[in-house]
Amino acid sequence: MKKAVRKMHLNLFLAETGHHVAAWRHPSVQADAGTDLRAFVELTRIAERACLDAIFLADSVAANVAPGASRAARSDRLDPLTLLPALAAVSERIGLIATATTSYNEPYHIARKFASLDHLSAGRAGWNLVTSDNAAEAQNFGRSEHIGHEERYERAYEFHQVVSGLWDSWDDHSFVRDKASGLYYDEATLRVLDHRGKHFTVKGPLNVPRSPQGRPVVVQAGSSEAGRVLAARTADVVFTAQLELAAAQAFYRDMKARAAAHGRAPDELKILPGLSVVVGQSDAEAQDRFDELQSLVPPEAGVAALSRMIGNFDLSGYPLDGPLPELPQTETGQQSRQALLTRLAGSENLTIRELYLRIAAGRGHLQIVGSARTVADAMQAWFEAGAADGFNVMPAELAGGLTQFCERVVPELQRRGLFRTHYAGTTLREHLGLRRPVRVSHGPDQRAA
Amino acid sequence: MKKAVRKMHLNLFLAETGHHVAAWRHPSVQADAGTDLRAFVELTRIAERACLDAIFLADSVAANVAPGASRAARSDRLDPLTLLPALAAVSERIGLIATATTSYNEPYHIARKFASLDHLSAGRAGWNLVTSDNAAEAQNFGRSEHIGHEERYERAYEFHQVVSGLWDSWDDHSFVRDKASGLYYDEATLRVLDHRGKHFTVKGPLNVPRSPQGRPVVVQAGSSEAGRVLAARTADVVFTAQLELAAAQAFYRDMKARAAAHGRAPDELKILPGLSVVVGQSDAEAQDRFDELQSLVPPEAGVAALSRMIGNFDLSGYPLDGPLPELPQTETGQQSRQALLTRLAGSENLTIRELYLRIAAGRGHLQIVGSARTVADAMQAWFEAGAADGFNVMPAELAGGLTQFCERVVPELQRRGLFRTHYAGTTLREHLGLRRPVRVSHGPDQRAA
Repeated sequence: MKKAVRKMHLNLFLAETGHHVAAWRHPSVQADAGTDLRAFVELTRIAERACLDAIFLADSVAANVAPGASRAARSDRLDPLTLLPALAAVSERIGLIATATTSYNEPYHIARKFASLDHLSAGRAGWNLVTSDNAAEAQNFGRSEHIGHEERYERAYEFHQVVSGLWDSWDDHSFVRDKASGLYYDEATLRVLDHRGKHFTVKGPLNVPRSPQGRPVVVQAGSSEAGRVLAARTADVVFTAQLELAAAQAFYRDMKARAAAHGRAPDELKILPGLSVVVGQSDAEAQDRFDELQSLVPPEAGVAALSRMIGNFDLSGYPLDGPLPELPQTETGQQSRQALLTRLAGSENLTIRELYLRIAAGRGHLQIVGSARTVADAMQAWFEAGAADGFNVMPAELAGGLTQFCERVVPELQRRGLFRTHYAGTTLREHLGLRRPVRVSHGPDQRAA
Repeated sequence: MKKAVRKMHLNLFLAETGHHVAAWRHPSVQADAGTDLRAFVELTRIAERACLDAIFLADSVAANVAPGASRAARSDRLDPLTLLPALAAVSERIGLIATATTSYNEPYHIARKFASLDHLSAGRAGWNLVTSDNAAEAQNFGRSEHIGHEERYERAYEFHQVVSGLWDSWDDHSFVRDKASGLYYDEATLRVLDHRGKHFTVKGPLNVPRSPQGRPVVVQAGSSEAGRVLAARTADVVFTAQLELAAAQAFYRDMKARAAAHGRAPDELKILPGLSVVVGQSDAEAQDRFDELQSLVPPEAGVAALSRMIGNFDLSGYPLDGPLPELPQTETGQQSRQALLTRLAGSENLTIRELYLRIAAGRGHLQIVGSARTVADAMQAWFEAGAADGFNVMPAELAGGLTQFCERVVPELQRRGLFRTHYAGTTLREHLGLRRPVRVSHGPDQRAA
């Protein structure tokens, strides 16, 4: 008899042509895959055959047209909440996680769209709740600059409260639809949210019945202090960028402890570090594949990607083979990622070119280039050392990099008993081992009901 | 040799269980079809087999929980922009039109979502541009009352300007994605909108390439003076509620003349009156089916539907068999529909019960109950008398009413040479006989480019 072992969770982080900044130039890659539904359908099917927990789409509500951006495939991106329903229609089990910002949306729309996706997909929807931290996005929504760090997170917390309350507008049996009596819904079970807060005033109820998962899964990726506070209170899953085991372990412990401080079981919050992967039949073959991708990076695109990642500080005027300049301590930018990269450049004395090549595939995430065994070893080590509950898998190039991962690494993990060989449940919450939330009464109406 | 005759355009107006207020109670109807993707997929396939131009989803960003609403199937409704992408993935040719309000959305989001849908569907997206005219919606977006009529339309016009400008951010060949040179997009073709208006400040560009149709089809349904002005300037298709031929002809002539005054060819604006249909093998069978539906209307639901339609004036306290009371002249409500119904009740001396039964299926739209021949005769008469370019078809109950229409009425229209027997084009614009818009330069950047 086999003893039940803890299993990893594997989420596929889908970037249009792959995560490597030069992926779109690789001969095997379909350069316009980002606007082709058929390409996304194929990727979804590969991931579902491998029984991955979910696919995940990042987002930005602005085109990247900064200097150098015309040489990187990041300026065009379909709306994730428009793309995922199409993928829901052609898949059966895999979870579907879309990013939507709390900074430039209305909670009613977001609650409704994710509840709708949860219905359409029979319980497979997830929301990556983010805040927006760059001026290009702000300028598409009537602002000249993005919202400050503190206010952004305050707004995000209230946004989450409103969305959760709207998801609980109805109970699981409100819509009786009784043909004989002519009763469509049971008024006694309805609760009007009537939220009046600092950032939002939203009456409700939502015009969508309570969804299959009760509430769609909530994902977050903020690693700053404010981000951690928010995630510990409200997230089911945390994505994180980690380069070193010790730091990943510290983050993992910290987040589990913070969740516990809010009365949550450690297992109710899953920590998934990003994992940039290039897989080959052997370590050498993988390295060749990686070197080929590295050789395709246009310097302008490399500098542009680095500029963006260190907090939208334009590095295009600095010598490629010189050091990273002193960066302004951006109060509201991507604080955690900036610190991580500055530390890396400093400790290894990297030039700008060396640093952008270092992040060209993984953008500051753990990066493994090697055979299935090499990749699985690294994953197992982090998983068993208390650094991860699984990984947010970032193939360098698509579809090849995903196929390699699913056909080589997944079977290796399955042989080791670390990953499922079939879906036991049907919803994303079931894949993740998360309980279905009990309906909570929100707002003044809870006393009346 | 057959001479080419003008053909009708047929749009399927999909309401969850059908348009009749009691459809959900009919024994043949799946009462929870509104949250079941499989039901929508089946309806889409029926419509596509019949070569209809498009399917169309109405919307409201509030639950209807007014008195009596618990007996009508209108309180739950999935988000149309989440539902249509799923239907895009399982269809090939049929157009996909979703409603989205200009009152409580941001133009950047709307431009992006419809452009994304246009890509996913290979050119089949349409946007029904509406303004929101009830308090329940306002209260989900931080307002206590809805925006006044004039300001609402002013905002809608500016909203449309911004969306159109964003759709023209790139030209059809901006994204060269040239692997050899490493050029992903051609900066020279990019135009930054930089819109600064009374209601919106939006920089752009859109982070979605110009879509297959250039711009998704724009539909409108406002029949008030402000609605007509807006539609004549900006719409490709106008939906309208008409009960009498003479009024329909006058509306048709008026809209074509207004379009001409803006330098548009009459054929660039298609007028589609709503057509509520119940089809049977014979007129008598159709009437039996209709009578059965009428017998199922709960009085509370009938009164609620009527209350909503006359401008959200609550009629639940008035005697069912008494006359319609004097209604307050609502400045910002559904002006045109209120006038139409008041006129109808007055001219025929109808009680509240008689009036709600009169609109239980068609809500003030042309209503035909009869055999395929009867229905086709009426459609042909309006079509040939200059009252319609086609119809917005509203089956009383689903899926049966749609199947009846597609299997009986469509072949009859095809025999008469009034409707296509196959799709000649692939995009919604092609189905509608609308040209692909030329890209227009918007904003200050047009001088620089």
